[in-house]
Amino acid sequence: APVFAQSNVQIYGVADAYMRYGQLMGDDLMSVHDGGIAGSRLGFRGEEDLGNGLKAVFLLEEGYDISTGKSAYMSGTDSAANSGSDVFTRQAYVGLKGSFGQVSLGRQYAPGYFADPYDAFMGGTVGPMADLTTFGGLTIQPASLARWNNSVAYNGTFQSVSIAAIYSAGNKETEMAGSSGYDASDDDKYGVSLKYDNGPLKLGAIYQGVKFKSRFSGGSYIDSPADRDETQQDWLIGAAYNFGVATVMGLYQKGSDVFGRSDLDVDFWQLGAVVPVGPGNIRLAYGQEKIDTPSGPDYKPKSFTLGYTQDLSKRTAVYVGYHYTDYDDMPWGTALGYGFVAGANGHSTTTPENMDSTSFAYVGMIHRF
Amino acid sequence: APVFAQSNVQIYGVADAYMRYGQLMGDDLMSVHDGGIAGSRLGFRGEEDLGNGLKAVFLLEEGYDISTGKSAYMSGTDSAANSGSDVFTRQAYVGLKGSFGQVSLGRQYAPGYFADPYDAFMGGTVGPMADLTTFGGLTIQPASLARWNNSVAYNGTFQSVSIAAIYSAGNKETEMAGSSGYDASDDDKYGVSLKYDNGPLKLGAIYQGVKFKSRFSGGSYIDSPADRDETQQDWLIGAAYNFGVATVMGLYQKGSDVFGRSDLDVDFWQLGAVVPVGPGNIRLAYGQEKIDTPSGPDYKPKSFTLGYTQDLSKRTAVYVGYHYTDYDDMPWGTALGYGFVAGANGHSTTTPENMDSTSFAYVGMIHRF
Amino acid sequence: APVFAQSNVQIYGVADAYMRYGQLMGDDLMSVHDGGIAGSRLGFRGEEDLGNGLKAVFLLEEGYDISTGKSAYMSGTDSAANSGSDVFTRQAYVGLKGSFGQVSLGRQYAPGYFADPYDAFMGGTVGPMADLTTFGGLTIQPASLARWNNSVAYNGTFQSVSIAAIYSAGNKETEMAGSSGYDASDDDKYGVSLKYDNGPLKLGAIYQGVKFKSRFSGGSYIDSPADRDETQQDWLIGAAYNFGVATVMGLYQKGSDVFGRSDLDVDFWQLGAVVPVGPGNIRLAYGQEKIDTPSGPDYKPKSFTLGYTQDLSKRTAVYVGYHYTDYDDMPWGTALGYGFVAGANGHSTTTPENMDSTSFAYVGMIHRF
Repeated sequence: APVFAQSNVQIYGVADAYMRYGQLMGDDLMSVHDGGIAGSRLGFRGEEDLGNGLKAVFLLEEGYDISTGKSAYMSGTDSAANSGSDVFTRQAYVGLKGSFGQVSLGRQYAPGYFADPYDAFMGGTVGPMADLTTFGGLTIQPASLARWNNSVAYNGTFQSVSIAAIYSAGNKETEMAGSSGYDASDDDKYGVSLKYDNGPLKLGAIYQGVKFKSRFSGGSYIDSPADRDETQQDWLIGAAYNFGVATVMGLYQKGSDVFGRSDLDVDFWQLGAVVPVGPGNIRLAYGQEKIDTPSGPDYKPKSFTLGYTQDLSKRTAVYVGYHYTDYDDMPWGTALGYGFVAGANGHSTTTPENMDSTSFAYVGMIHRF
Repeated sequence: APVFAQSNVQIYGVADAYMRYGQLMGDDLMSVHDGGIAGSRLGFRGEEDLGNGLKAVFLLEEGYDISTGKSAYMSGTDSAANSGSDVFTRQAYVGLKGSFGQVSLGRQYAPGYFADPYDAFMGGTVGPMADLTTFGGLTIQPASLARWNNSVAYNGTFQSVSIAAIYSAGNKETEMAGSSGYDASDDDKYGVSLKYDNGPLKLGAIYQGVKFKSRFSGGSYIDSPADRDETQQDWLIGAAYNFGVATVMGLYQKGSDVFGRSDLDVDFWQLGAVVPVGPGNIRLAYGQEKIDTPSGPDYKPKSFTLGYTQDLSKRTAVYVGYHYTDYDDMPWGTALGYGFVAGANGHSTTTPENMDSTSFAYVGMIHRF
Repeated sequence: APVFAQSNVQIYGVADAYMRYGQLMGDDLMSVHDGGIAGSRLGFRGEEDLGNGLKAVFLLEEGYDISTGKSAYMSGTDSAANSGSDVFTRQAYVGLKGSFGQVSLGRQYAPGYFADPYDAFMGGTVGPMADLTTFGGLTIQPASLARWNNSVAYNGTFQSVSIAAIYSAGNKETEMAGSSGYDASDDDKYGVSLKYDNGPLKLGAIYQGVKFKSRFSGGSYIDSPADRDETQQDWLIGAAYNFGVATVMGLYQKGSDVFGRSDLDVDFWQLGAVVPVGPGNIRLAYGQEKIDTPSGPDYKPKSFTLGYTQDLSKRTAVYVGYHYTDYDDMPWGTALGYGFVAGANGHSTTTPENMDSTSFAYVGMIHRF
């Protein structure tokens, strides 16, 4: 039988599953869930030496939900706005790499994905940051809103400093004139970050802008004056310091005109610590969000997670913990109206029913391959 | 060029295609079909030695239809009830393995999938068992209804005895209170099996329960008293004995409140034999089902398959045969009403049109890699 | 840690992305696009020596759009007419190979896919051929319409001559009697090709037939006399000759009863050249189509591309160029009515708005792995 050389492609991935028991926005919860520490993925990557320090690189990364076997980690808009089934939901790019850094084309991470050094839960779904940045619609987040289609990205690391920049043409390739001559379909995005990582200290600053010139709804872009929206602008600063007995980290971020809605402003801060204890680490984070709606009151959701992670090897770990989020009694109708939740899930959006808290204990394992 | 070590992931799979000619429920049939012996799949798996006899394991298995290149082998409900595209339609799990057995989390096989030792066609789609257990809605079957999301599974083998147990939280993670306070969304599932395999003799017993507390329809769970259904309960006993000149096998199984419909009871039995002849095997099986509808007559579909399989190597085989199923003149309206067929396929469900038989000759090949 | 041998499966693929700037049918265009030279794909293939010169072969090939991470390269009809998500959108087959050639079953290329030797852009999406054969609905094309489900294929090469033949049962497995007794669902396809390739000369002839006995629309096959359509018949002749200083190539093709519409005839011719210049190649092609509509005027879209390709290695190349297509002022309503465009994309199909030209500059890279 012929033996094929496997020199060009590396297969890698994550399988991360956990069980959680408790309450999800007031409903009894008991399930297997994906990605307590890192979202499950299967990836294919390679690089080729082209000489003179130049390399060709490619990466294809499929996110999946281990609890269902379905694809995951592509935003609803990215999925609906393009034809085909969801495959390389996390990343797909090809590029050139050298001493100058890397330039690549495809579906790629915005800089906002990489705020994980300032989060004690490294962007995992059990932490406050993953929970509340998604709830608040912030594009600087460790989840789907920070993966951008049709993008050109630059990444460079020079000693302790790394720079990232990205421009995405959005999901709409053409910029059509609407019936009134207005350009009704521009959904470009752009982002930059500057990070410092040296010894015990990590610092970072990130900025992202996302245009919403026409709203994407029901599978198409709407060309009406009422849906000619604003540009969401997000920024974040974060820091982490390893004191030896513990690493302490924190971040502050702010989003203006969230979802392109004029005057819908959201900010979020989080403090956390990772404390080595015996063979594992205790992890703790507390985060608080302020949602400033154009009309109506402000809401201040808050969330904390206390967890313990123990490595069984360099590639495998088990983890347990407790997560709590209080949505500050936001009415279901408000949450659905602004798009903070995808569905009312059986709750009334007309009678004044408020969102109950989420609280669950979890236990799981992650295996990297 | 860098050479990546491929030490962590094994790629494996099946490519199985056959042509069939004949009649499908009365319509002229001529097509390429998937999985005459085993459903086509592409899998990625690995294990890591953690020391002290403990191993981390993962497995990701994508089922595909080789005749169309599309995903296959995920039930319609599993596909519709969860977001994303169908990817690892067969299995996706991560777990720990040791002398105690294996505990794993994810989308996994229920014990009912593994009744293949008692089926002369090893669960292949050309055999009576695969045909009539799917038609009758039995969850103990070699097909999609025996793959469960959100599950915790235990599998252990101790000398000649193997034990399997699974609990699935179903597709609905939360258990919502309905408008009347009734829990309207519980779709939990559970199953156990005990098997004996020693020398010429194989024995097995399987039990599964599937809750239907609210019907899933049109993409959501319905909260109305009329759709508060029962728990489908299935059990099976099977046996196989290798007499040398032939292996003879049989099974009996019964499902109560099938699809959660009160008093819809289905039973099925099958007898078969595998006879080594020259370089190949003759395979023969006959199965008969009884569908006991709550109102209206009983139906007794029956099916047989006569086939011949010849190995070209340990990994590759060719096969031919003839399959016949008689649906006992069940009206199309009855079959569609109870969910035994997914669509009427152009046949009338209002005028009294009965289902004609399925009969086809087939020829195909399977390649394992 | 256990090391798995990877002897049975070869992973291969293409990652090809380019940026384009200009106009697409009149709209401002600025985006990342897939497959300037070859459509992005990830494939798994293998072969097993069965002795006596016989081999088992399999191939699974997933097409993806690198700009979105979604699946690509399955026709809309193939996707809608079959259940499941799009996975192995390009090819999925298993077969036997020997001195006689190769016989295989699955989703496979029709011979019309392999007209690339006669196209200076090798079937890449930036060339005139890929653009206008797709626009004109010709099934002899380097794109989705030349990938056929439910097919049996033969391919054989004998010295300088290669022969290909395929029969596809289409997407509809059964051939149902319609309400009037007419067979309303036959969508079979068949194709043959004969090619000669020796030294500087390449010649080829291709024929394909695609039945449209009932129209597939909105997810199902329509059984009405008005939708009982014709068989689309396509043929092509092509040639290429390498003069050393340049390779010159050309093709002529014709389709009758395109999309099964009686008297909708389309022909297309293209001339091109590849000229080695320094470390790269200049590529040039001009193509012209004639669309002869049953009622109404003829349209003659024309297209040219001028490009430059430079290899950075055997596996990696960069490319730049300029593409132009003039749709001969076809009204949007006509283009949509005949199915030449998938959507009006915001343009009026009722007021007499004509299609503006497409013109863009592009720059990209391809990496094969």
